[in-house]
Amino acid sequence: MHIPLDRDSAQPLYQQIEAFLRQGILSGSLPPETRLPSGRQLAKNLGVNRITVERAYAELEADGLTYALMGSGTYTLPPPSPLPALTENPPAPWPLWQQELLHGDEVSEPLVPEALLHPAEHPDAISFDGGTGDPLLFPVQEFRKTLQEVLHCDGCSALEYGDSRGYAPLRTTIAQVLTSQGLRANPDHILITSGSQQSIALVAQLLLGPGDVVLVENPTYSGALDLFRSMKLRIVGIPMDKHGLQVEELEKLLQQHHPRLIYTMPNFHNPTGICLSTPRRRQVLALAERYNVPILEDDFVGDLRYEGRVQPALKALDPDGSVIYMSTFSKMLMPGLRIGFVLAEGPIYERLVRCKRVNDLASSNLMQHALAVYVTIGRYQTHQRRSCRVYRKRRDAMVTALARYLPQQIRFSVPQGGLFLWLRLPDGTSSEYVLAAACEEGVAFMPGTHFFLNRAQGEPYLRLSFATQTPSAIEEGIQRLSQALGRCMARPS
Amino acid sequence: MHIPLDRDSAQPLYQQIEAFLRQGILSGSLPPETRLPSGRQLAKNLGVNRITVERAYAELEADGLTYALMGSGTYTLPPPSPLPALTENPPAPWPLWQQELLHGDEVSEPLVPEALLHPAEHPDAISFDGGTGDPLLFPVQEFRKTLQEVLHCDGCSALEYGDSRGYAPLRTTIAQVLTSQGLRANPDHILITSGSQQSIALVAQLLLGPGDVVLVENPTYSGALDLFRSMKLRIVGIPMDKHGLQVEELEKLLQQHHPRLIYTMPNFHNPTGICLSTPRRRQVLALAERYNVPILEDDFVGDLRYEGRVQPALKALDPDGSVIYMSTFSKMLMPGLRIGFVLAEGPIYERLVRCKRVNDLASSNLMQHALAVYVTIGRYQTHQRRSCRVYRKRRDAMVTALARYLPQQIRFSVPQGGLFLWLRLPDGTSSEYVLAAACEEGVAFMPGTHFFLNRAQGEPYLRLSFATQTPSAIEEGIQRLSQALGRCMARPS
Repeated sequence: MHIPLDRDSAQPLYQQIEAFLRQGILSGSLPPETRLPSGRQLAKNLGVNRITVERAYAELEADGLTYALMGSGTYTLPPPSPLPALTENPPAPWPLWQQELLHGDEVSEPLVPEALLHPAEHPDAISFDGGTGDPLLFPVQEFRKTLQEVLHCDGCSALEYGDSRGYAPLRTTIAQVLTSQGLRANPDHILITSGSQQSIALVAQLLLGPGDVVLVENPTYSGALDLFRSMKLRIVGIPMDKHGLQVEELEKLLQQHHPRLIYTMPNFHNPTGICLSTPRRRQVLALAERYNVPILEDDFVGDLRYEGRVQPALKALDPDGSVIYMSTFSKMLMPGLRIGFVLAEGPIYERLVRCKRVNDLASSNLMQHALAVYVTIGRYQTHQRRSCRVYRKRRDAMVTALARYLPQQIRFSVPQGGLFLWLRLPDGTSSEYVLAAACEEGVAFMPGTHFFLNRAQGEPYLRLSFATQTPSAIEEGIQRLSQALGRCMARPS
Repeated sequence: MHIPLDRDSAQPLYQQIEAFLRQGILSGSLPPETRLPSGRQLAKNLGVNRITVERAYAELEADGLTYALMGSGTYTLPPPSPLPALTENPPAPWPLWQQELLHGDEVSEPLVPEALLHPAEHPDAISFDGGTGDPLLFPVQEFRKTLQEVLHCDGCSALEYGDSRGYAPLRTTIAQVLTSQGLRANPDHILITSGSQQSIALVAQLLLGPGDVVLVENPTYSGALDLFRSMKLRIVGIPMDKHGLQVEELEKLLQQHHPRLIYTMPNFHNPTGICLSTPRRRQVLALAERYNVPILEDDFVGDLRYEGRVQPALKALDPDGSVIYMSTFSKMLMPGLRIGFVLAEGPIYERLVRCKRVNDLASSNLMQHALAVYVTIGRYQTHQRRSCRVYRKRRDAMVTALARYLPQQIRFSVPQGGLFLWLRLPDGTSSEYVLAAACEEGVAFMPGTHFFLNRAQGEPYLRLSFATQTPSAIEEGIQRLSQALGRCMARPS
């Protein structure tokens, strides 16, 4: 144990020692029954007289904060209850530079107070608000065996620093999976990241600076909005219809704003579930080339298609390196792995690798080794087929329940894949108020306000994830939602 | 398997299919012995006539790229050797925005061509160029058991998304370890990151923008320099002497440059191994407060002390939240884990958490669970004591060998801890040229040029890591280094 002592201070050393230990005990950082060093040992460590330490210990014991056990040592006691507030924030104000951080906060405020959105926990809540697949489908036990195997075979090498581009065998596997999905990929153009959020962050850091314009579908993924806002970018929304982003509008925005990046989710868009039509895919590409703007294609659940014909990725149609493609294992396999990837050709690839390196050197080597062993094309396809089968049933269960229990004024369309259903409420009904009521009924969803550039525009919308609940829980949850809606829609907004 | 088809193209569909598969086979993304889908299946998937697919398959077979096995299917063959160059980069030039990425590259050029620095591999090379502890001391098998335990007990929850601040029990453990080292810490002020590089990146992203000034010791950690350069910061160096950064110079620089951050390694500084003296620690703090500048304290190996009295962390002396403290498990336990942490109070803490969230949501949940189970104070201290014992012997072996084999003109001092020895060559001898010669002799180190703002200033220096080699390998390696130095110092520079 080390205790910082100020030998120039007017405060005696024993008091400094005592105050340090007292603070540790009161704050809980020295838990009860911690054995303190012997007086002799601590005195030696601190370079003070043993009497000094013993005196500090005596004061603590007198205050009931420690007890001595003959022949064994001095032990801490629980702090006297009630636990005093941690007095680590001294009366002194924060330094000026810290105070300035409190201002200019670029995150917009929720329309409804946060407190309302987290009402008292329901004993048996049904959650439709997640953004990932069902953890119960995650192949935990198989993956556990794989980790064993890797640590057994690769030993230390799996725990050393890895290649900033990512572990080569994993890049090869990803290239094979992509190729089997119609996207020709070279392992040397793949960069492993710590999940999709990092993929977007790296591309944005590389291509955009404060004040630059990024085009996004409106609505779009809330994590991308948060990132772009924190980077102080100018975010411009591309309107959508049922075939995806509107290409004519895109061209106008390209002419008007000279954006540095287009961020898009052509497949099973988050939050709407819409797929961009194939003719529009070609048009978007042509526009990006004509206006010299890179496209970041986020294909986060492109392989979770339950029906209909597969559409080519923008990247698969990209003749000259305009498209930066990204996807992830997080949604389908295991989110906690934090492994995603970017596919990009041309000068940008090496720049992205360098950007990854200065940001965090490389992603966890052990996870990459394990994933490289675990994921084979065959296994991936088996898992994907199974996931599709399960999620399709859940989607159908939710669609059936919505048709059965919800008022007819509430509109939605049925997505051909992905994780989400996107509902539009009647005008004047706010999804944030509905959420407050829904939480009371014991069901949760994501209000549309999270996904729009202008939160208010999202008030009539809400996103339901059907992926993580069983069909019977889905039916029960939608009934509860219907109750909540009944209360909110009856009430004048 | 999906193949993108352009139905408006003049190229017949069977040729599009054939070209896609051919490219896959030639590029290796369809490895030999891959079973292609049946003609009927692929035709159905693509929505084309079965004859179209069969015709494409026939062409491939005719070219020796596939073979058909009666009653079993069509399989790929290895591409004809020599493997043709991957023709993914078409004759079309990169888009303009990509070409622009080739210019304005802010990384400075090495003084000596890279090729010289990576001569033909020596059969039995001894590496002193690492920046981490010895992987052979890493508790791989114990950690393997812990991972098992975690996946067994926590199952899916260890594989879901985690708290952006980091897994709470791990933050508690870290707070206890820090408190036992004399640094009072509250778990709620700790943010888990993906290693030290990310800790620096998050703080820099939050506090600095292009053109802002950051003060660093000169020399300093090369990864921090790379990051600050990539962010287009103005980097200003604080001169050092044997007691660490020079405080009088620091004050002048504060007055002159109005920096937004001071980045410093007070303990066993990388690359020099120097510890900042205690009086200077108090002076640095007082200056930071007076000039309203935050300090980022990188304590990457503070607990690897082999002798001498422990000095308080700047953070332990910090009365009002001027210091952002960071450390890591990477150097001592397992680099591949990619787990580090930041300790900060005040408004900056929540901002850092948000910055972490927009960058990559959270660090690997599984690794954090495992580390929380694995690391107890007792185990940590045991491992730390063992590491100190081993590294101290290695340091002594290297000091002995240097004294014995190296010319007297080469100067160094003996660090009281850490991983590195820092050598100064006679004027006119360049460590990059010495490295080229040393690689031929079969020994590697880090030339000083990596660590200085102005690379040329580092030419007379080199950094040796003593942590990863046994005493006998150290003696052999220093003999080889002596040979290389003999060749270079004899030669007029």
